[in-house]
Amino acid sequence: MRFAVIGGDRRSALLCTLLLQDGHKVHSFALEQAPLPAEIPKDGCLQTCVYSADCVILPTPAEAGGFLHAPLSEESLSMDALIEALWPGQLLCGGRLSEKSRQAALREKLSVADLMCRADFVAENAALTAEGAISLLMAESQRAIRDSRVLILGFGRIGKPLALRLAALGAQVSVAARSAADRALAAVLGLRPLAIGQLEGLAGDFDFIVNTVPAPVLSEAALCCLSPDALLLELASPPGGFDRRLAENIGLHVRTAPGLPGRYAPHTAALLLRDAVYGAIREWEE
Amino acid sequence: MRFAVIGGDRRSALLCTLLLQDGHKVHSFALEQAPLPAEIPKDGCLQTCVYSADCVILPTPAEAGGFLHAPLSEESLSMDALIEALWPGQLLCGGRLSEKSRQAALREKLSVADLMCRADFVAENAALTAEGAISLLMAESQRAIRDSRVLILGFGRIGKPLALRLAALGAQVSVAARSAADRALAAVLGLRPLAIGQLEGLAGDFDFIVNTVPAPVLSEAALCCLSPDALLLELASPPGGFDRRLAENIGLHVRTAPGLPGRYAPHTAALLLRDAVYGAIREWEE
Amino acid sequence: MRFAVIGGDRRSALLCTLLLQDGHKVHSFALEQAPLPAEIPKDGCLQTCVYSADCVILPTPAEAGGFLHAPLSEESLSMDALIEALWPGQLLCGGRLSEKSRQAALREKLSVADLMCRADFVAENAALTAEGAISLLMAESQRAIRDSRVLILGFGRIGKPLALRLAALGAQVSVAARSAADRALAAVLGLRPLAIGQLEGLAGDFDFIVNTVPAPVLSEAALCCLSPDALLLELASPPGGFDRRLAENIGLHVRTAPGLPGRYAPHTAALLLRDAVYGAIREWEE
Amino acid sequence: MRFAVIGGDRRSALLCTLLLQDGHKVHSFALEQAPLPAEIPKDGCLQTCVYSADCVILPTPAEAGGFLHAPLSEESLSMDALIEALWPGQLLCGGRLSEKSRQAALREKLSVADLMCRADFVAENAALTAEGAISLLMAESQRAIRDSRVLILGFGRIGKPLALRLAALGAQVSVAARSAADRALAAVLGLRPLAIGQLEGLAGDFDFIVNTVPAPVLSEAALCCLSPDALLLELASPPGGFDRRLAENIGLHVRTAPGLPGRYAPHTAALLLRDAVYGAIREWEE
Repeated sequence: MRFAVIGGDRRSALLCTLLLQDGHKVHSFALEQAPLPAEIPKDGCLQTCVYSADCVILPTPAEAGGFLHAPLSEESLSMDALIEALWPGQLLCGGRLSEKSRQAALREKLSVADLMCRADFVAENAALTAEGAISLLMAESQRAIRDSRVLILGFGRIGKPLALRLAALGAQVSVAARSAADRALAAVLGLRPLAIGQLEGLAGDFDFIVNTVPAPVLSEAALCCLSPDALLLELASPPGGFDRRLAENIGLHVRTAPGLPGRYAPHTAALLLRDAVYGAIREWEE
Repeated sequence: MRFAVIGGDRRSALLCTLLLQDGHKVHSFALEQAPLPAEIPKDGCLQTCVYSADCVILPTPAEAGGFLHAPLSEESLSMDALIEALWPGQLLCGGRLSEKSRQAALREKLSVADLMCRADFVAENAALTAEGAISLLMAESQRAIRDSRVLILGFGRIGKPLALRLAALGAQVSVAARSAADRALAAVLGLRPLAIGQLEGLAGDFDFIVNTVPAPVLSEAALCCLSPDALLLELASPPGGFDRRLAENIGLHVRTAPGLPGRYAPHTAALLLRDAVYGAIREWEE
Repeated sequence: MRFAVIGGDRRSALLCTLLLQDGHKVHSFALEQAPLPAEIPKDGCLQTCVYSADCVILPTPAEAGGFLHAPLSEESLSMDALIEALWPGQLLCGGRLSEKSRQAALREKLSVADLMCRADFVAENAALTAEGAISLLMAESQRAIRDSRVLILGFGRIGKPLALRLAALGAQVSVAARSAADRALAAVLGLRPLAIGQLEGLAGDFDFIVNTVPAPVLSEAALCCLSPDALLLELASPPGGFDRRLAENIGLHVRTAPGLPGRYAPHTAALLLRDAVYGAIREWEE
Repeated sequence: MRFAVIGGDRRSALLCTLLLQDGHKVHSFALEQAPLPAEIPKDGCLQTCVYSADCVILPTPAEAGGFLHAPLSEESLSMDALIEALWPGQLLCGGRLSEKSRQAALREKLSVADLMCRADFVAENAALTAEGAISLLMAESQRAIRDSRVLILGFGRIGKPLALRLAALGAQVSVAARSAADRALAAVLGLRPLAIGQLEGLAGDFDFIVNTVPAPVLSEAALCCLSPDALLLELASPPGGFDRRLAENIGLHVRTAPGLPGRYAPHTAALLLRDAVYGAIREWEE
């Protein structure tokens, strides 16, 4: 097949290479600063890049504020201009496309596949985020995971693999979740369940705190009770689970980790992207 | 406190003893055939039993066809008559009360707590069911769990702990689920995900098949592909995941296991009941 | 190849069938009471059975008090007479052959392979014993494994998989071992290590006690401290880890489980036997 | 108690602080470049440091080539001079003391406790090394652990926790061991056992290779078969499990990791040291 890979970070660059290795024809655009194999042209103009493509691949997430997410390019490209350049019948893949972009693409008679609607892609990325979080905790602390006391906030797609893997590494893992069903599942899987309301009283007991909930769950009072030696890791998108500025002001060790899959394990993250694209193509062809 | 335990199976009888051991006063009714400590009266009439009770405990499930579930009693007691005999202000606990019974109880100014609405009770019972299922597979087969090929149908409250525990015992566990998100979670947790549509082609590869889905998931065609040596365990309520009669007609080894917690581990099942009742009382008192 | 399967229990009978299914020629002797496929002769005399065999398979263990272990036969056959009937160049397989039998076989110019010298066979049987022990604990108790407090005596070939699998099922597992290195390994693997000397003080805290050590480790004083509700399982060969008579006299629930692999999972046990025989043949042919 | 902590790396410095926090009196020597709390004197002369000490703590390992291991000091101190400065009746703790030093200490009527003779200290350090190795694999590769193919060479004190933890993180773990019993145990614990002789044929299949065996196990031929993308981690002391120079010459990614506990998790490593010292003191007092 013929692919046009447009914008994105290191994962998109690695994706180009993986597609090439599978025997596909690949053009790139808005990846000027990425190292790419010589066989993959860095087209000077968008039209050249997409001209004969069967499938156009945007990043995950694809856009911010109406512009393509393209950290490895100097130019900024509006999603409107981008979509207008595409050809009817092409498959447009990308993550978290805005509704506006999706509608525009459909008007241009494109097929649209949002990779973030693929359950396996989302779950595999969450698992990769969980593993990256473990790597961060290991690297950023002078303390071992084994026998440490860990609090995981949230028991969703990231929280589940994160909590279970940390427990397998010998940590004492508590899981705070708002849903009683999530807490009950955590208990059944051998983890210690906590209600959000219990956190203030217990916050001082943890060496590592990892938030996965994109909503305030760790109150100011709870933050102030944390051990000064604790490491606090924020995995959720803003606003996140706690007031980061406050946390830093009271001297806590805080780390945030946006885009963890691509930064922690770009090779694996690119493989996940490739598999998601292939999955989208299979469904498109059916 | 003063409890009236009415109807139910061996779990209810054990519950009486546990409540007594905790220092409570306990009366029983419709448990004539259960062995009970001498301190617990088997009241001859319902009114005597409930007269001074703070909390009235019915079985889980509480009723069938409008009548109390009371396998250890010769008499049949309608839920209407039962609820009419209770006193305003009493707490009525039980599992899966019908909406009709609940409304009747509220009209009598009773407080009502359905134990099956307690997430922890439901999850703990599911985990106990999962463990009982493992015990059954072990007891009913001439084959070890380790290195066996197991298919779990469904990845809900029972499926999750069941699949993970079997994998920990060394089985090769496949999970078939209708939801793509469930399949993706199964994959992330190290299990092999299957779509329902894949079952026909793969059904012959399993030594153990356990259904947890209360809806047909194993088609006639898939049933006919199962290995004749396989053991097929039905954990879901009727209609269950497959046509049991057909399965038996084609010579498959089929086991059903209703009420597994109470039959497999009555002591633990009674402890779960007691904890759920105490939880309901705590919330009632608040 | 041509096999003569002589003596043994149900595992030997199943082994006959497995060998036949693999396309071998199989004769049997001293298995009169075993159900066997019609293609496998139950020879009336030993000489007929072994006449053209390449490999002669005795049970595991092969003998007791100088006589073949043959619970499915009415006759008793001395090992001397048996070995004398074999032909030079045949491979004699069996488990725990006495030194006397081994020497006699070598004098007859037989090749001898003691299956109990095969590390994989021994380890796999130990793992099967561990799984069978879990099945027994499940079947014999009214209590679930999950959240139960288990004491494993010994951390060798059976103790390791037993302890780790019970922990994976959610039990709180303590391991008592004489060797400090074994205790340290148990701790590293997430189990609670105990010295033998600590048992008297802690014995009352356990729901399940499983002994795997063939030497007294549970003193009379420790036995007397056990909870009257506890289940005590003896897996070691006599004399075992405790005074069984005393244990029963003081009202403890005691189970012994000799030959657990064959009784718990005869099919899997026979597969292990077959693989061990094939392994012995491969080494013999080299 | 009064402690003299002499020489050592960051772990020794942290140990000083931990002892102080427990209320002990601590002097230090040959730790000039370590940051220490103000309450802990950095004595200018050895005699002052040890004068009133009950227990003298040397590093682990204590010495190299007859001289104290003191990387945070500019001076070099011979073990002879050191031991001569101590007082009869003092307890001398340290790791891997040479036989010569031990004899000299006994002649000076010191009590000697080699921490590396403590099974729990050795096992806990091995587990910490295993965790540190996982952290290294995570940090040094662009690939996730999950679904990666890992080869662990050796199944001893480091290999066991390392292999089991990697498997829990979702890796496909193969264990190569010289002992058939170790391989059989690995199989029973769900890992893939390999004989050393199989490595040449399979070496190309792994993403991560970790050696724990202090003897050549990975032949030149096997090295040459490794995937060029593989990461090769050496945990064993020299000579290690493979020819490092050759490995680098053929372009493999090689990492060595001496003293991993202290570098990966100095806080936890110091806690282990402290617990080992306290254990040695308890036994000394008995």
